[in-house]
Amino acid sequence: MKILLIGAGGTLGTAVHKSLAARGHDVLTVGRSSGDLRCDVSDPAQVTELYARAGRVDAVVGAAGHTPFKPLAELTPEDYLAAFHGKVLSQIDLVRQGVPHVAERGSFTLISGVLAREPIPTGSAASMANGALEAFVRAAAIEIAPQRINAVSPTVFTESLDRYGDFFPGMPPVDLADVAQAYVRSVEGAQTGQIYVP
Amino acid sequence: MKILLIGAGGTLGTAVHKSLAARGHDVLTVGRSSGDLRCDVSDPAQVTELYARAGRVDAVVGAAGHTPFKPLAELTPEDYLAAFHGKVLSQIDLVRQGVPHVAERGSFTLISGVLAREPIPTGSAASMANGALEAFVRAAAIEIAPQRINAVSPTVFTESLDRYGDFFPGMPPVDLADVAQAYVRSVEGAQTGQIYVP
Repeated sequence: MKILLIGAGGTLGTAVHKSLAARGHDVLTVGRSSGDLRCDVSDPAQVTELYARAGRVDAVVGAAGHTPFKPLAELTPEDYLAAFHGKVLSQIDLVRQGVPHVAERGSFTLISGVLAREPIPTGSAASMANGALEAFVRAAAIEIAPQRINAVSPTVFTESLDRYGDFFPGMPPVDLADVAQAYVRSVEGAQTGQIYVP
Repeated sequence: MKILLIGAGGTLGTAVHKSLAARGHDVLTVGRSSGDLRCDVSDPAQVTELYARAGRVDAVVGAAGHTPFKPLAELTPEDYLAAFHGKVLSQIDLVRQGVPHVAERGSFTLISGVLAREPIPTGSAASMANGALEAFVRAAAIEIAPQRINAVSPTVFTESLDRYGDFFPGMPPVDLADVAQAYVRSVEGAQTGQIYVP
């Protein structure tokens, strides 16, 4: 399949790229400052241009999203808006604009995260964003069929424990390779409206 | 208890008001164009003024939220932003600004809805908003304790079947009086971080 991979240069995107390429897929890498195609997906005009340049694809895979982390008392309306733009609206726009460019039974796979269901202190904007994304995926699935849409919702990566482990005490981490397999499952499988928890 | 009820003039707010008053509570009604105190909760400055005028309260109860309904292909980024402001950020701001004004073991009860988990066509912005709100509630609960926060997430009201029933084929409706009891449960109970499905 021809697959558009957004956030290909990141920790997760690199692992997803490796797994999809190993499965024989033709992966077009997308990033803000690296990759086959450059795009800031939080800018709708750049998303329009991205799809125009990519041509018809079989799958769109999102592996990038940004949300601020601060104690609830310090989070401002602007912080929540930044989380909404950085992880929710940017990925919704990939779907909204992508529908005409994706194959009839093609798919979208978006990135969510464990904070949708398991909160941590300083994570309320991230929780909000992940909850929004997952509910959107369930809703979009029934409207874009036979195109498909799923989310991958991992906990902290084993490979990132040094940096983020203290935020997830006692929570089992997940290997990046297993998260990447959830993307493979979404891209090559037939389900839709699913939230895969690798 | 002294309770601030936002959206008191609406279909749901009227039922919640009746149930809380019947339990002997002192309910301060809030609305954009009616009620004891006037406030457009989507405007942070008006929320600041609302809390200044209300004084210390034991509970803040939200019964108002607005999201656009359109087919996915017609929803624009502006529509998703309107849903975010109209149901998510407005209620988050009630919490963010309300914490210093609510009693130590007081509570916030926000309004979500069935579309967070059961999507319908034209409802992807509403689903997104409800999913965001519910995840925020779970996250805020662990940071504002011993203050509490819950959401009420009803399906279509029995009393609104004439107007909205066609959007919820085969889904059991819920009586407004039962939804109002979920608010009573949140306000007078001791749980936090819960999504009550009446």
